Amino acid sequence: MNYYSSQISKLIEELSRLPGIGAKTAQRLAFYIINMPQDQVNNLSQAITSAKANVRYCKECYTLTDSEYCPICASDKRDHHTIMVVENPRDLAAYEKTGRYDGVYHVLHGAISPMLGIGPDEIKLKELIVRLEGDIKEVIIATNSSLEGETTAMYISKLIKPTGIKVSRIASGVPVGGDLEYIDEVTLLRALEGRVEL
Amino acid sequence: MNYYSSQISKLIEELSRLPGIGAKTAQRLAFYIINMPQDQVNNLSQAITSAKANVRYCKECYTLTDSEYCPICASDKRDHHTIMVVENPRDLAAYEKTGRYDGVYHVLHGAISPMLGIGPDEIKLKELIVRLEGDIKEVIIATNSSLEGETTAMYISKLIKPTGIKVSRIASGVPVGGDLEYIDEVTLLRALEGRVEL
Repeated sequence: MNYYSSQISKLIEELSRLPGIGAKTAQRLAFYIINMPQDQVNNLSQAITSAKANVRYCKECYTLTDSEYCPICASDKRDHHTIMVVENPRDLAAYEKTGRYDGVYHVLHGAISPMLGIGPDEIKLKELIVRLEGDIKEVIIATNSSLEGETTAMYISKLIKPTGIKVSRIASGVPVGGDLEYIDEVTLLRALEGRVEL
Repeated sequence: MNYYSSQISKLIEELSRLPGIGAKTAQRLAFYIINMPQDQVNNLSQAITSAKANVRYCKECYTLTDSEYCPICASDKRDHHTIMVVENPRDLAAYEKTGRYDGVYHVLHGAISPMLGIGPDEIKLKELIVRLEGDIKEVIIATNSSLEGETTAMYISKLIKPTGIKVSRIASGVPVGGDLEYIDEVTLLRALEGRVEL
């Protein structure tokens, strides 16, 4: 890209390393950033370095946080006897947005994937087992409904079953507001198998 | 977003100020950045601040550059008697990518838009007129094929005509409503070859 000066090219290059940011988007962002007010540029740059510097794992649930324990694990308003297992902090946020789950979480930071060579030791699974030594009543497995998510769910349930702790899996089926004709067959079959009596 | 810690929320907030970056994308980018190697984070942050600090207008064509004159205006391999007028540096880059235009540019940084209240004085038009006092043989107007781009083209051609300098407009090989930076190189070349005198 020799038609841009080196500073602009450098910024475009760094931006295009980010996931989902292609060459065009990186260009558009770069010119937008150059035209932003100085203080907003400083805020952005500072937010990036200080998030990287200060964010670490919660000692309890392994979500990303900037204190020793995340706000959820530190709260005494949450039910610490119920653990929902999710793949990543964004999935945690998705359930928090519902505002209706009052237990705590465990963030695996991935899912078991033989295809990608990710085994049980590559995710925060040992850390979950350690937590089960406390007074836990139920583990709700909320990994994604993908091949990796299902594999991980099966693995975890087999691991926990012998301890006698209740293990459940979030239901899969037709999403609310979903139109049957646009939903894939596997989901439709799941919805049928999981039907509940009215 | 109280389910994220403050440093993460701050980063998500700053990222979502960027154009085309919604809440979901900002979240994904934030977590990606936090997991990037430290030196890559530093590079990104530094590229942002130093591009903002060092980038300014080329004294000749008003594109963004980090030296007094941009590489194109500084080059003696370019034909300095032919000026292509574009709306912004990304459009300049789009024509440079074709590798077949050897004249110089003039970057307006916008287009005349009565709707948005952008008049001829809000864009780098006076600066173009000043350049015409030199030995200029042709002005090729390559503003976008939008309402604003066409208006700007008409305005510029009426302004230049009395000087006797040849004025042309890139051909309508560019689809109506299209944005130069997203158009393929072959179409851009067709448009250049098919330019007609105004």
